[in-house]
Amino acid sequence: MSSSDIFIGETIGTAILILLGGGVCAAVTLKASKARNAGWLAIAFGWGFAVMTAVYISGPLSGAHLNPAVTIALAIKNSDWTNVPTYIAGQLLGAMIGAALVWVAYYGQFHAHLTDKEIVGGPGAQATAAKAVEAQEQGAGPVLGVFSTGPEIRNAVQNLLTEIIGTVVLILAVLTQGLNDKGNGLGILGGLITALVVVSIGLSLGGPTGYAINPARDLGPRIVHALLPLPNKGGSDWGYAWIPVVGPLIGGAIGAGLYNVAFA
Amino acid sequence: MSSSDIFIGETIGTAILILLGGGVCAAVTLKASKARNAGWLAIAFGWGFAVMTAVYISGPLSGAHLNPAVTIALAIKNSDWTNVPTYIAGQLLGAMIGAALVWVAYYGQFHAHLTDKEIVGGPGAQATAAKAVEAQEQGAGPVLGVFSTGPEIRNAVQNLLTEIIGTVVLILAVLTQGLNDKGNGLGILGGLITALVVVSIGLSLGGPTGYAINPARDLGPRIVHALLPLPNKGGSDWGYAWIPVVGPLIGGAIGAGLYNVAFA
Amino acid sequence: MSSSDIFIGETIGTAILILLGGGVCAAVTLKASKARNAGWLAIAFGWGFAVMTAVYISGPLSGAHLNPAVTIALAIKNSDWTNVPTYIAGQLLGAMIGAALVWVAYYGQFHAHLTDKEIVGGPGAQATAAKAVEAQEQGAGPVLGVFSTGPEIRNAVQNLLTEIIGTVVLILAVLTQGLNDKGNGLGILGGLITALVVVSIGLSLGGPTGYAINPARDLGPRIVHALLPLPNKGGSDWGYAWIPVVGPLIGGAIGAGLYNVAFA
Amino acid sequence: MSSSDIFIGETIGTAILILLGGGVCAAVTLKASKARNAGWLAIAFGWGFAVMTAVYISGPLSGAHLNPAVTIALAIKNSDWTNVPTYIAGQLLGAMIGAALVWVAYYGQFHAHLTDKEIVGGPGAQATAAKAVEAQEQGAGPVLGVFSTGPEIRNAVQNLLTEIIGTVVLILAVLTQGLNDKGNGLGILGGLITALVVVSIGLSLGGPTGYAINPARDLGPRIVHALLPLPNKGGSDWGYAWIPVVGPLIGGAIGAGLYNVAFA
Repeated sequence: MSSSDIFIGETIGTAILILLGGGVCAAVTLKASKARNAGWLAIAFGWGFAVMTAVYISGPLSGAHLNPAVTIALAIKNSDWTNVPTYIAGQLLGAMIGAALVWVAYYGQFHAHLTDKEIVGGPGAQATAAKAVEAQEQGAGPVLGVFSTGPEIRNAVQNLLTEIIGTVVLILAVLTQGLNDKGNGLGILGGLITALVVVSIGLSLGGPTGYAINPARDLGPRIVHALLPLPNKGGSDWGYAWIPVVGPLIGGAIGAGLYNVAFA
Repeated sequence: MSSSDIFIGETIGTAILILLGGGVCAAVTLKASKARNAGWLAIAFGWGFAVMTAVYISGPLSGAHLNPAVTIALAIKNSDWTNVPTYIAGQLLGAMIGAALVWVAYYGQFHAHLTDKEIVGGPGAQATAAKAVEAQEQGAGPVLGVFSTGPEIRNAVQNLLTEIIGTVVLILAVLTQGLNDKGNGLGILGGLITALVVVSIGLSLGGPTGYAINPARDLGPRIVHALLPLPNKGGSDWGYAWIPVVGPLIGGAIGAGLYNVAFA
Repeated sequence: MSSSDIFIGETIGTAILILLGGGVCAAVTLKASKARNAGWLAIAFGWGFAVMTAVYISGPLSGAHLNPAVTIALAIKNSDWTNVPTYIAGQLLGAMIGAALVWVAYYGQFHAHLTDKEIVGGPGAQATAAKAVEAQEQGAGPVLGVFSTGPEIRNAVQNLLTEIIGTVVLILAVLTQGLNDKGNGLGILGGLITALVVVSIGLSLGGPTGYAINPARDLGPRIVHALLPLPNKGGSDWGYAWIPVVGPLIGGAIGAGLYNVAFA
Repeated sequence: MSSSDIFIGETIGTAILILLGGGVCAAVTLKASKARNAGWLAIAFGWGFAVMTAVYISGPLSGAHLNPAVTIALAIKNSDWTNVPTYIAGQLLGAMIGAALVWVAYYGQFHAHLTDKEIVGGPGAQATAAKAVEAQEQGAGPVLGVFSTGPEIRNAVQNLLTEIIGTVVLILAVLTQGLNDKGNGLGILGGLITALVVVSIGLSLGGPTGYAINPARDLGPRIVHALLPLPNKGGSDWGYAWIPVVGPLIGGAIGAGLYNVAFA
């Protein structure tokens, strides 16, 4: 694969991943969306099929890593770091484009949600601290949640461990696909199976932190959240931002190491 | 493929697509249906598996476009417009047949829903404007929604953009299938994967407009809605009807252009 | 295939189909089940995966028709009625065994549901007609629903048409599989795709009648319902029993005819 | 396969199975989880995709039994008991590791759930017997449910029969895969299809007992529950523990016997 194919493939693929992944969060949480309150199962399937769609579209160009943790795990496994910067640059750019497209597709919903009197309170309503907290929980919180992950219980050690564990599962599933595929079709089934692995991680390990398991998926959209002109949007929670970056990278390295020890 | 196979295949396939797709909307929204209130996840899976069923049935005859946006994108990609009118004529006819079959299958449910006193109010209840709005929202609105899409927030620019974005994702997924398939089975898996892409678009990009992403899917049933003798059915919202036609066609063209630039 | 393989395969396969299909109805509707109120999506996926499981298990023995409508459609398509009686006998016997196994697996739940004071009323509560209707709706009705289908709105013409339409979709999907499979694996994917077609029919066409689309699936368990010693079980609704038998048989014949005209 | 590959594969695979399977129970039932109240469909899909993920990861090393009932059924089918102890030892160790990882990933959620005043009552609240029962039902009960199964209605005969029936279905589906696979890809599709069979069993036969259908899945985590320093955790319900061990083993033997009689 040429560098330009890798960069273009990762940019397009990660843009589609975040468009569809952020999209399902917007669909389920924002006011005036037909899918509002569709629940966690919709979130988990939505992210999984987002992965599938992005993998099949970008696979022929770049191999569809779409995740720096996957890129680094493959570099460790193959002892080849040549294209790592190209992959990660495309992933970050794509994630930002995808987040911006979610904003376009749900423009009216973002505005309606953040300016709704029942959600963020009427004029002067945020004067009291309790009202401000409530507005944050019901208004700005879900909007940030469309872009980036956040913990239910803020505990750096647990949050980091949960992200590491989830990423190790993802990496083991990705790396062992080559062992299952003996010219019998898993190459092409891989996108579907990886998608369902992501559904699995979402259902099973997403409860505490919202399962970033991908540094680009979290950091790119968080930057876009900070830049977009959304009313009453609140902060971008930069204090938490390192966990969904560092956790998945550690998880990627552990997953690759475990693979090299047990499976190679 | 002969012209008659194309026309028959697209007619049968699109009829099944709309029968099952409109059917799940009827199942989830109409009174006296066992699936009432099954939620957005049921809608999204229902439309996705409708696509899958229609693709496998009509694929051997016509290649299963079932969507003028797909037909036009393939014509742009292949620079071959020969059969485009045949495809689109079959799609429109099929969509109308499918919508009529939904009416047959849910005949009693349509009638029960539109004449229910609690839903549309008793005699004279619509005398006040507020009552008429409520009746529209609870009675006629869902019934039109069985046939055609409509926006949660009426904003032509956003609604058009949302339909364009959704269709671009669909078209990229359809066009890249040929790149993934190297005699290894994606040809036959394609119907399933396309179905799950449609589930993904529904979950992630369906919130604002209900994701037509297919001009025939929206226009054909809207015509049938206008023609059917349903009591208290309200208008067919022709003011919105151009958006789910024009948006997907633009999306199809953009998708094909993007494919030709980045993937071909 | 030998006659004994066909009979044994259809008996085992249909028993598993009804065990899992009736099972999900019991799981979702009976008191003291962990899955109670899991909703229509659970019902639709439950029946679909029941078909998948039964198809893969019995396929190697009998080809996994599991449905007299499928058997008759294949006989029409192939102009070969030799094994039709053997298939249908196995299907009916299997359906009865499966229904009895549901009763074993949910024994306590059936008893708890049918004797619950809140559901069927206390001593003498059924003395009034209104109380008796309520007990029927909440107690005996769901229990019959574990075994057999019933309409939301009782209208023989519509109910029959809905069953015919659903079965035609099923039959077209089954018969065209041979056209999609050119030695590329659909033979083996067929069980999964048929399962998802059944999920689709359930989501989209199940609302009015509960989608029998299979005479054995409805008649066998209804006979078992009539025989089982369940307390307060109410009648077996024999007045409706002909519709889920005749409708699917007509649908099977129409589907095979349509296939012979348009696809063969 | 070498003994060490078998042991390592089963340990890793069963650890992932229980991490993801126990994880979805934690996600859906514990306080302060984003997936709380996602419902039975989420549980059933979560366990199914847990099986899929574990099968693809451990398959290349050990063949991915992940369940003593599967190991014993294969031993009966193949009349080869050589590696049975190695398989079962890896499965039990893996199940315990997986349960411990659930505790790590949901550490804060376990603590929040078990110390929540609204759930387990304030100081002195458990002084009355009724309060203690309520605290058990809302607090400690769900926490044990993250680790091990328990019946809705405690009836040893029914509970045992339900576990046997569910396991027979699983074993028949696993053993017949070899008959479906004629070099056409089911080898690689097997993980996905087995996963959906497990979803099916969960939806259809999980209502009464929570479908252990795997002795290691239930016993390993129950031991871990007894060992972990969880506050207010209550007992580990050892009185029930034999049923999800003995039932699946009997089911495995019956399934293998049925296979040998009808399919071999």
